[in-house]
Amino acid sequence: MADVPIMTAAAEKPIEHGGDLEALGHRYPQAPRPWIDLSTGINPVPYPIGILPAEGWSRLPSRAAEEALLAAAARRYRVGSGATIVAAPGTQALIQLLPRLQPRSRVAILGRTYAEHALCWRREGHEVSVVADLAATEGADVVVLVNPDNPTGRLVPADALRAVKAALLVVDEAFVDFLPAQASLAGALPGNAVILRSFGKTYGLAGVRLGFAIAAPTLVQRLRGALGPWAVSGPALEIGRQALADDAWLDAAGRRLSTHSERLDTLLKAAGCRVLGGTILFRLAEHGEASRVADALARHGIHVRRFADRPTLLRFGLPANDEGFARLASALQDL
Amino acid sequence: MADVPIMTAAAEKPIEHGGDLEALGHRYPQAPRPWIDLSTGINPVPYPIGILPAEGWSRLPSRAAEEALLAAAARRYRVGSGATIVAAPGTQALIQLLPRLQPRSRVAILGRTYAEHALCWRREGHEVSVVADLAATEGADVVVLVNPDNPTGRLVPADALRAVKAALLVVDEAFVDFLPAQASLAGALPGNAVILRSFGKTYGLAGVRLGFAIAAPTLVQRLRGALGPWAVSGPALEIGRQALADDAWLDAAGRRLSTHSERLDTLLKAAGCRVLGGTILFRLAEHGEASRVADALARHGIHVRRFADRPTLLRFGLPANDEGFARLASALQDL
Repeated sequence: MADVPIMTAAAEKPIEHGGDLEALGHRYPQAPRPWIDLSTGINPVPYPIGILPAEGWSRLPSRAAEEALLAAAARRYRVGSGATIVAAPGTQALIQLLPRLQPRSRVAILGRTYAEHALCWRREGHEVSVVADLAATEGADVVVLVNPDNPTGRLVPADALRAVKAALLVVDEAFVDFLPAQASLAGALPGNAVILRSFGKTYGLAGVRLGFAIAAPTLVQRLRGALGPWAVSGPALEIGRQALADDAWLDAAGRRLSTHSERLDTLLKAAGCRVLGGTILFRLAEHGEASRVADALARHGIHVRRFADRPTLLRFGLPANDEGFARLASALQDL
Repeated sequence: MADVPIMTAAAEKPIEHGGDLEALGHRYPQAPRPWIDLSTGINPVPYPIGILPAEGWSRLPSRAAEEALLAAAARRYRVGSGATIVAAPGTQALIQLLPRLQPRSRVAILGRTYAEHALCWRREGHEVSVVADLAATEGADVVVLVNPDNPTGRLVPADALRAVKAALLVVDEAFVDFLPAQASLAGALPGNAVILRSFGKTYGLAGVRLGFAIAAPTLVQRLRGALGPWAVSGPALEIGRQALADDAWLDAAGRRLSTHSERLDTLLKAAGCRVLGGTILFRLAEHGEASRVADALARHGIHVRRFADRPTLLRFGLPANDEGFARLASALQDL
């Protein structure tokens, strides 16, 4: 198996993620506020949260509320026959959990990608290789990919994934929501696969902590047992149920994000960036002096994602509105 | 080690918990609504939730928000030097996690108690004995107790716990909040101990999903790594920080709960129950025909906790207010 060593070496150290503005505020005390956070791939226009029933906070989450959420999620994600679904307090909780349910394995991760996958498999003692393409995963017990990928946007066709022979195939579909339904494995899930679906990114509600795994009933049962009762908060059950049933909101969000990601590409190209890919929730850009660009944007109060080991790349989330686009345009002109 | 087999045999099956009224409603369709749920040990008068900042829902929970919560919790729980604290989405998440961090062990659980402890240690392949007293834990690698106990209220003095020689001592202090500070191990934590503190029970906010582990830094670091980033939701960070800093609310809650638990005892005794113990959040009662009592109460729309393997025992949570007490009194007179 070709091992492309593109992970940072100290994989046991906590990983730096986007989205933590407090830390940034200390580094750029003069930056204008409020910060525009383009460092994550989270929809900048959240699903509107209505009035939440007080019982959602006070009572233990009920089975009926959990089942109502799961029914809405199964419909939304088009979970096919032979598969079932479990809810967790964020897909990160599932990423933490999956490596603990497997015997020591050779794990091939299609990289480069969201670094928590490699960290979590390594932490549990598995032998992890980060490989460059699906062919190089041959022979691995466990294959992990983010599809479409973060940050590149690379999409491995579902049919190619159905041919993967590994004992376990983990497909993190965190960013699949706005692609055509056939991009997801959920509708005709192979028996060896588990799909992760993120609620917070698409619905702009990352603080809610809600995510799902879709897999064969045996694996879902083990995940459910490992998560234990009341894994998801009462308000998350309610918000998730409402949002996942709201097709009109999702359609409108998809149209807006599509327009806005094109608008972002135009701005980035005008500023001398090459847009390498991404999804409609984030764009991956290349620039010879990416670090200087990120620094200049931070001084304008705009936070983008850098990659310590790939100094020419930056990832841009989408501004929420015209004002955000105007601030970004003005900052980019000032490079 | 004396093995007192008081756990139900099929410990791998999910455990029936209190608090799920939907299921009960189907069994007692004629019962008057709303149900009065006395089946849990959750404070029936929740901490008031103010207006929550929208960013708590939309953004990934920030490190600064997590650190502010942990500072409030460390003060509230009087975490002493040499120990530190980690937050989880409910203590149940920690109960699920601890057995995965230990090598295969002989685990002695002081019983009978909250059954999730035994279930979770057994699920991870440990050899679990449920024993009747602390002396019988001698020789175990891991000792687990709920202190004060649920449902008996038995309190093992902190000094006796400091003498426990096991490699790991898990003290679930879910119900210690209203006892004098020295009842908790947190202030002078032995190096082998981990304490679990529940937020939802004391503050009446079980749906929020928030709990803590207090332990030596090495173990806390492992728990933090296993929980991963953003384990606690944004709203939970905010609500917890506010509530844990509010000593006046806690004092008033303690006075009310103390009065109400005495009032409950009086009612139960008048109805022919023997009150065996409990805490100020719940009372354990014995009655020769406990099952008939529970059934009669359910037909009055009042849900209490039964114990499948101890048919003479019932656990009563506290009614929230005078109306609740009046409905309970009237139902008990109608036995």
